[in-house]
Amino acid sequence: MSSLAVIPGDGIGPEVMAEVLKVHAVVEDVFGTGLKTEVLPWSADWFLEHGDVGIDVLAVRRDHAAVLLGALGDARIPDNRHAIRIIGGLRQQLELGVNLRPVRLRALAHCPLKHVTAVEDVDLVVVRENTEDVYVGVGGAVRAGSPAHVAMEVGVHSRWAVDRVVTAAFELARSRRRRLTLVDKSNAMPSAGPLWQGRFRAIAASYPEVECDHLYVDAAAMELIRNPARFDVIVAGNLFGDILSDEASMLAGGLGVAPSASYDPEDGSFAGVFEAVHGSAPDLVGTGRANPLASVMSYSMMLGRLGLREAHAAVERAVDEVLCGDLLTPDLGGTARTGDVGDLICRAV
Amino acid sequence: MSSLAVIPGDGIGPEVMAEVLKVHAVVEDVFGTGLKTEVLPWSADWFLEHGDVGIDVLAVRRDHAAVLLGALGDARIPDNRHAIRIIGGLRQQLELGVNLRPVRLRALAHCPLKHVTAVEDVDLVVVRENTEDVYVGVGGAVRAGSPAHVAMEVGVHSRWAVDRVVTAAFELARSRRRRLTLVDKSNAMPSAGPLWQGRFRAIAASYPEVECDHLYVDAAAMELIRNPARFDVIVAGNLFGDILSDEASMLAGGLGVAPSASYDPEDGSFAGVFEAVHGSAPDLVGTGRANPLASVMSYSMMLGRLGLREAHAAVERAVDEVLCGDLLTPDLGGTARTGDVGDLICRAV
Ligand SMILES: CC(C)[C@H](C(=O)O)[C@@H](O)C(=O)O
Ligand SMILES: CC(C)[C@H](C(=O)O)[C@@H](O)C(=O)O
Repeated sequence: MSSLAVIPGDGIGPEVMAEVLKVHAVVEDVFGTGLKTEVLPWSADWFLEHGDVGIDVLAVRRDHAAVLLGALGDARIPDNRHAIRIIGGLRQQLELGVNLRPVRLRALAHCPLKHVTAVEDVDLVVVRENTEDVYVGVGGAVRAGSPAHVAMEVGVHSRWAVDRVVTAAFELARSRRRRLTLVDKSNAMPSAGPLWQGRFRAIAASYPEVECDHLYVDAAAMELIRNPARFDVIVAGNLFGDILSDEASMLAGGLGVAPSASYDPEDGSFAGVFEAVHGSAPDLVGTGRANPLASVMSYSMMLGRLGLREAHAAVERAVDEVLCGDLLTPDLGGTARTGDVGDLICRAV
Repeated sequence: MSSLAVIPGDGIGPEVMAEVLKVHAVVEDVFGTGLKTEVLPWSADWFLEHGDVGIDVLAVRRDHAAVLLGALGDARIPDNRHAIRIIGGLRQQLELGVNLRPVRLRALAHCPLKHVTAVEDVDLVVVRENTEDVYVGVGGAVRAGSPAHVAMEVGVHSRWAVDRVVTAAFELARSRRRRLTLVDKSNAMPSAGPLWQGRFRAIAASYPEVECDHLYVDAAAMELIRNPARFDVIVAGNLFGDILSDEASMLAGGLGVAPSASYDPEDGSFAGVFEAVHGSAPDLVGTGRANPLASVMSYSMMLGRLGLREAHAAVERAVDEVLCGDLLTPDLGGTARTGDVGDLICRAV
């Protein structure tokens, strides 16, 4: 019997995670996945009480098959240092170098674009490098606080990590519509640019069936709106992947339906961290307006990565069914409450 | 009599610039601005012929009151090295630290968002820092070309340049709807983040009438789609400003109507560089489908910055009139040709 680490976290995290656990109980009943859950208390409250995030990242991997993360973020902590340390710690220390952020439209009404006239026009995955770039925290400042203050922020890009994520993106593209777009800013980044471009070209040679495409990040931010149908799989560095995946999520209903999976393609025993793209949304806490679907969809990605095909397919079908109906939370134009949507998923599974 | 340096550049650059020069001739006739024009040949062709961009940036400032730039970009030159050297050279060597990129909707039909129901909902300006960040070209690599290749790209942020652009943004916000949003990624950029945040707060103290707002860049990329009406003025670093301004341009009709002004607020004699946000669009060359309005609007921003109020107002009115009509280029759903739109502007001035 394997174990899932469950980190409800802050804000609406515990509320959406409660729905995931309801869904998991049904999945357990129907499919007998043998996955027990253990709730871990890491959160802003914990951080404020203990002065530390309290996370033993390597023990998490040793003791669990995967992590389900609710949301982290709390206005009492400047720049959410606890969030970046927990999320960044998991991603970097466990080498979860691949972050998948699928964006798929289920009902036309959820797309804000007038010119999208078929749900198939919005069906893409952002594959984000998940361990490097500016997220390494390398940098510094001279004369901080004086008028001559100069800060430097260093984006680090290793061939090792670029190869890992680009290969994962080609593999994914091959299993989908076979089109991969590299997004970078090589015209203004003379050091990182050639590395990404060169490795993309080199790895592309092993995937002749995948059509390759390239966009500068500014053009990509535009093209997502102008012509989302041109995208199948997008691969990008950590920073651009962060920006583009948030933007792209808006095309299919927003953060309420944006799941993510972070994993190490080389790790056969630990499946990864599965979390909604959204934050802790403090303004929604206790209102019942939070959409649990992004977390349920992340849970479903986990089932898929654990190889639990039937359970995964059942939850995917349930999500599609709910998203094509009208019992939806306010972010999708409905009046349903968090728990209603969770119950509906449970019944549909 | 002052002089305007005109750089038609590559691709559709010469075509749209021809329309600007037609408009300028009319403006000259009607308002007698006393601005003669001198065409400078810097372009991909020049670069390929001479092996250099051929630009003497300081002479440009000495001899001219402003620069009108068409577009630069040519597939024969990897990563458009000539473009970044000409554009980057002008911006950095002339300390054009402030880049204004206004986005204003004139006709609802030009906005791709279903939920925008009033043109007033899209009326914002991205104020982009224009000299630093990753654009300084600082960085390097170890073991380039080997499996252990690591590239580093350094974003440089000086208090001096941050103060310059943040102050310009507050000044602009004060003259508009008095709302300024700082966009950064301070949660993942521990060196640049505090500098931007600290200076933003410090300078805000001198502008109590301006309402301050803050978004992480990923959230901003989303909010531009979710709720563009929340934005009045946005201030951001060079990289984020680049991405967000391209994205934002889509909300008001796209790059065909996205102008920009780059200037040094301290320079009383040189007004700056005025250029469309769009590139050289090689696929449109010779088709008559290029929209000259972005360049005409950039020209209009120049008139405004040169203090030529009446001429500026006349061109603004003409642009508004044309954009509310239906003689438009294909990017805005019309069938008009580049020259038709130019002629229409001339008649309306
Ligand atoms: C919390 C923050 C550091 C994080 C990131 O930028 O990676 C978040 O935006 C995300 O996308 O998971
Ligand atoms: C050509 C390129 C380097 C430039 C930039 O990124 O600044 C362009 O995209 C722009 O926005 O003017």
